[in-house]
Amino acid sequence: MQKIRVGIAGYGNLGRGVELALRQCSDMELAGIFTRRPPESVQPADSQSKVFPIKDAESMKDQIDVMILCGGSASDLPQQGPYFAGLFNTIDSFDTHAKIPEYFDLMNQSAKGSGRVSIISVGWDPGLFSINRLLSEAILPNGQSYTFWGKGVSQGHSDAIRGIKGVKDAKQYTIPIDEAVERVRDGLNPQLSTAEKHLRDCYVVAEEGADKAQIEQEIKTMPNYFADYETRVTFISEQELKRNHSAMPHGGFVIRSGKTGEEDSNAHIVEFSLKLDSNPEFTASVLAAYARAAWRMSQEGQSGAKTVFDVPPAYLSPRSGAELRKELL
Amino acid sequence: MQKIRVGIAGYGNLGRGVELALRQCSDMELAGIFTRRPPESVQPADSQSKVFPIKDAESMKDQIDVMILCGGSASDLPQQGPYFAGLFNTIDSFDTHAKIPEYFDLMNQSAKGSGRVSIISVGWDPGLFSINRLLSEAILPNGQSYTFWGKGVSQGHSDAIRGIKGVKDAKQYTIPIDEAVERVRDGLNPQLSTAEKHLRDCYVVAEEGADKAQIEQEIKTMPNYFADYETRVTFISEQELKRNHSAMPHGGFVIRSGKTGEEDSNAHIVEFSLKLDSNPEFTASVLAAYARAAWRMSQEGQSGAKTVFDVPPAYLSPRSGAELRKELL
Repeated sequence: MQKIRVGIAGYGNLGRGVELALRQCSDMELAGIFTRRPPESVQPADSQSKVFPIKDAESMKDQIDVMILCGGSASDLPQQGPYFAGLFNTIDSFDTHAKIPEYFDLMNQSAKGSGRVSIISVGWDPGLFSINRLLSEAILPNGQSYTFWGKGVSQGHSDAIRGIKGVKDAKQYTIPIDEAVERVRDGLNPQLSTAEKHLRDCYVVAEEGADKAQIEQEIKTMPNYFADYETRVTFISEQELKRNHSAMPHGGFVIRSGKTGEEDSNAHIVEFSLKLDSNPEFTASVLAAYARAAWRMSQEGQSGAKTVFDVPPAYLSPRSGAELRKELL
Repeated sequence: MQKIRVGIAGYGNLGRGVELALRQCSDMELAGIFTRRPPESVQPADSQSKVFPIKDAESMKDQIDVMILCGGSASDLPQQGPYFAGLFNTIDSFDTHAKIPEYFDLMNQSAKGSGRVSIISVGWDPGLFSINRLLSEAILPNGQSYTFWGKGVSQGHSDAIRGIKGVKDAKQYTIPIDEAVERVRDGLNPQLSTAEKHLRDCYVVAEEGADKAQIEQEIKTMPNYFADYETRVTFISEQELKRNHSAMPHGGFVIRSGKTGEEDSNAHIVEFSLKLDSNPEFTASVLAAYARAAWRMSQEGQSGAKTVFDVPPAYLSPRSGAELRKELL
């Protein structure tokens, strides 16, 4: 059988993750990596992988079945998304929650125009977590949903600390507060703000001679980022940051707590959780599975923007319907 | 908007659960309960619910959008499934895993013939657990999947104990073995048989004068059911069984442990878990949500047998696509 030919647009941690994920998918093959950098400056995980200037993609429409867009949501995807949706079936991990409706419309217009399928906001949140929020709410309408993130690195919060005078480098972990998680799992349905669900654990490398007390004070009082949260600050050496804090773990849980029965007498807890050693590699693996779905939906004649909500689970698996029913149902 | 009119075929614990679940779904309404018993002998949860002889269903094709089949898999569904699929869109919870392919074919033939949609094997296992097995395997092809059941009542095992001479009544709980669960969650990817994952906890009411040692021996050596398992037997009074063991809790987890990256250096754990006070009420709530999906798929012109693998998540929710993208993605 002809393999699904996949392109990767953008080669950072996520793009590299997709390159590695495709190796585990025997029904897909890498058609090329597309970059804005000089192609010879990119070192793919596999030295056999072909690297092209991003502008060459347009002339390779017949050689690529699905393009996985690995750029960032802030500035890359709003430009690249609609452009690539006009040429290819696409998958992306657009994750600026507030702008999803607007991005969906842009992508839908472009993908409808080209007759391709673009599945947006794929990954774990948005993505797998969203599916679980939807499923569990649909099944238990009388209930409450909770999303906890972590333990994991927040890039935005790490950057915010790095912006403080006297800070050389920093890593911030978002950590779910155990007590809050337990109250939810016990079905107590507490009202919890994001700050009541998470604490912020900061590892900071100070410049030589910097005022550490002042830095700590600035972190803990920073509005939006830290002021409302339980925040821990630990100063460490640059070597220690490199040695102990260069991995990119993440995870979290979606919990639905709902009631059924006469008098709402029966309580149910539905929980989906992830514990990930590498956030970008796992996200990339989700993108690869959805590339398979986009290709199938496109082969069926569908077009336009889609989200994980629109994709039947069977489309994610390389196995046949009969095999899935026999082995996994 | 016209509500989706739902019929319930069979009124045991599951049928009653569906009746209660529909109350929580503002877009659906109960069209009637259909029973093989004399209708006047059925006491619905809501005294306003209409009860009809099952043979009347055939003449009510225009009054029912989806029929939820609440009979058992052993003898009811193999007969009733194809019959009702020839008349209505249907949902059922057929759960004899080994016979699913055969049942699917029967239902597909009947539903194709009538131009209706029949979603089979809906519930949590098969059902939500199946979706999670599929999703997590598609995303992490290099890994192992584990399903644990419990703590929950196994009807089949309880019946097996009741069949022993000298036993008046019994309840058997299937309980996941903590140590096995922890090894899986730690990413150790152990090889585990069903017996190595679960223990069997039996509460037995003996007839007066029965030989308890003999009963315990017979339980613990019963092939297939108990012989391979760690089995606990506790003798209790009939009053105690009624007081402490008449609820129908259940639950369990599906865990996928997989690796990504160069040298498979990064481990990921994906876990879906349920903790249910009432197995039949939760299963019924899943059936109700899938009734909504069956109706939509039918409205789109689809027909034939489907499983949870074929249903896009969005079809389960009463909310619009735009609302789902804005609120839950």
